[in-house]
Amino acid sequence: MKNILPYETVTLDDEDSALVIIDQTKLPNDVVILRLHELSDIRSAIAALQVRGAPAIGVAAAFGLYLAVKHSGARTFEAFAAELKAAKDSLNSARPTAANLSWALNRMEAAAHSHRDQPVACIIELLHKECVAVYEEDIRMCKKIGEYGLSLLNDGDGILTHCNAGQLATSKYGTALSPIHLGRECGMQFKVYAGETRPLLQGARLTAFELMASGVDVTVICDSMASQVMKSGWVQAVLVGCDRVAKNGDVCNKIGTSGLAILAKHYGIPFYVLGPGSTIDLSVETGADIPIEQRAAEEVTSLWYQKPMAPEGVKVYNPAFDVTPHELVTAIVTERGILRPPYSETLRRKLPKRT
Amino acid sequence: MKNILPYETVTLDDEDSALVIIDQTKLPNDVVILRLHELSDIRSAIAALQVRGAPAIGVAAAFGLYLAVKHSGARTFEAFAAELKAAKDSLNSARPTAANLSWALNRMEAAAHSHRDQPVACIIELLHKECVAVYEEDIRMCKKIGEYGLSLLNDGDGILTHCNAGQLATSKYGTALSPIHLGRECGMQFKVYAGETRPLLQGARLTAFELMASGVDVTVICDSMASQVMKSGWVQAVLVGCDRVAKNGDVCNKIGTSGLAILAKHYGIPFYVLGPGSTIDLSVETGADIPIEQRAAEEVTSLWYQKPMAPEGVKVYNPAFDVTPHELVTAIVTERGILRPPYSETLRRKLPKRT
Repeated sequence: MKNILPYETVTLDDEDSALVIIDQTKLPNDVVILRLHELSDIRSAIAALQVRGAPAIGVAAAFGLYLAVKHSGARTFEAFAAELKAAKDSLNSARPTAANLSWALNRMEAAAHSHRDQPVACIIELLHKECVAVYEEDIRMCKKIGEYGLSLLNDGDGILTHCNAGQLATSKYGTALSPIHLGRECGMQFKVYAGETRPLLQGARLTAFELMASGVDVTVICDSMASQVMKSGWVQAVLVGCDRVAKNGDVCNKIGTSGLAILAKHYGIPFYVLGPGSTIDLSVETGADIPIEQRAAEEVTSLWYQKPMAPEGVKVYNPAFDVTPHELVTAIVTERGILRPPYSETLRRKLPKRT
Repeated sequence: MKNILPYETVTLDDEDSALVIIDQTKLPNDVVILRLHELSDIRSAIAALQVRGAPAIGVAAAFGLYLAVKHSGARTFEAFAAELKAAKDSLNSARPTAANLSWALNRMEAAAHSHRDQPVACIIELLHKECVAVYEEDIRMCKKIGEYGLSLLNDGDGILTHCNAGQLATSKYGTALSPIHLGRECGMQFKVYAGETRPLLQGARLTAFELMASGVDVTVICDSMASQVMKSGWVQAVLVGCDRVAKNGDVCNKIGTSGLAILAKHYGIPFYVLGPGSTIDLSVETGADIPIEQRAAEEVTSLWYQKPMAPEGVKVYNPAFDVTPHELVTAIVTERGILRPPYSETLRRKLPKRT
């Protein structure tokens, strides 16, 4: 069964003249495909979260940098490099803390500089190849994660996931959701429970959308319903993404992940973390060393709502992430394979690709 | 330190001429005090959840029935009893499945019938005493629950709660929140974490309001943040209410409760269930025999929101309750005392008051 999607997260159009993205700020109510030609529009799209997810942002930036200099009239490398740097700096400032954004832009710039003795037209063609490579490598990486992840599942399994570590956060397939998309492509069917993921509702808005679009059986639940769903025997595996993995295997991910890991242990359900090898940060000893970002109270009390849903001035605790201790993680799946405890040994053997 | 509240949940005014309630549908944004004289308005207030919570509904109905017949011109008991029955039936149909509603109305009617040989004016006065007794007994019961509960806590404790088992659900003090209100009255201060309680947000809307109104230090969290709050060492006890307790101690309560109990066990935090003895249902052997009400998908996908927050037509699982297995319950606190495991023995010794 072929998987026909009505969108791609981030790509170049057939003429290599526009960045094509699905506007994620309009999901799930409207499917709006944006075709962006101008640097300023591409920068705005990244800044406004119309494209989001670390890998997808990196790919969008690489495509955007190529489009920005594609029609350069520069006659010397120095002039071209100055144009390239201006465009790069503009894109790089769209999301100051996104590691993949600067990583992709630096890679593009380095490709140009390493061919500085060639004509500008040739360098532009090289940059085209480089941004397509960033895109294709991302797809390959996600596909590898999916293949390894799929080997842990059985057709028909019930799967619980959290937030959106999916196709909408990457060029294709996603990380935590990659096994599900890949399985669907080859005719397998899973029954997915998507935690809505308060306060930003990435599960209800994005995960539910992308799985429905791919023909996957998905059911939205409130985060507090996970225990009841697990108790009912409907979940054979929990699949989540990761923002950072410490040297000892502690996993920093969207707030709520650690609670799901504790529930999974209680109910005897395997808990899998899926992500690029680049999220394994051997410079961080344990999860205790990972700072937890605190976000605005309004996300909890009034965002999305017709009127505030908590008393004015009430105190709110709104951490964006939590740390799941390594003892609760059944396996960590990267593009390089399936890592099992003891993570302090197994993680070291698979050094991250992007350091 | 005296606890001065800007409202009462449900009471009679000083002239015994109106039911006074705080309109809970307007909380937390507006504090609207309603003074209701007419049967039809009182019935509407119950039906529209302007007053809610099983004990509070029972009290409102008792007051409402008294007010409905207070100015009766009936000259015979039969004529009076017919008026009383018509008013009772009207109120009783406002929330067909609320046990306390029909319990309070039946109690009022029985009081009238047991004095059928007295003049109508005397019966009306008896009904006044009866509805005030319903109200005062509810307060006494909540206060007893609070006193027993308070004996389990220390001044300064961090407390996590879920949903609203508070003053807004009873005549005063509440059940799970009673120890906190009582402690506050005698100068103790707790630090309460109120889970927002998706999808209906009773925690963010009601618990946060009533605790702020009583000067209690309260912080709203998303339900998924409980693990992180517990891990931070900020919670010394979890206090929750209960809708029904089975003979073996299994507790049916708001969806999300069982997950909190599992987290509490993981972090070594005591998990206390507080409620009237009448919620202990010895006719139910275990939690498995308690049917779980399923509610509309729209509560999860679009209620409160400016626009739907999940894809149109997505499947939603929306159970209103879950069952916490008795092994995870540190103690069950009723107005009759603190019950400890093994519940199959201890619950039987404290038969419910209202059977």
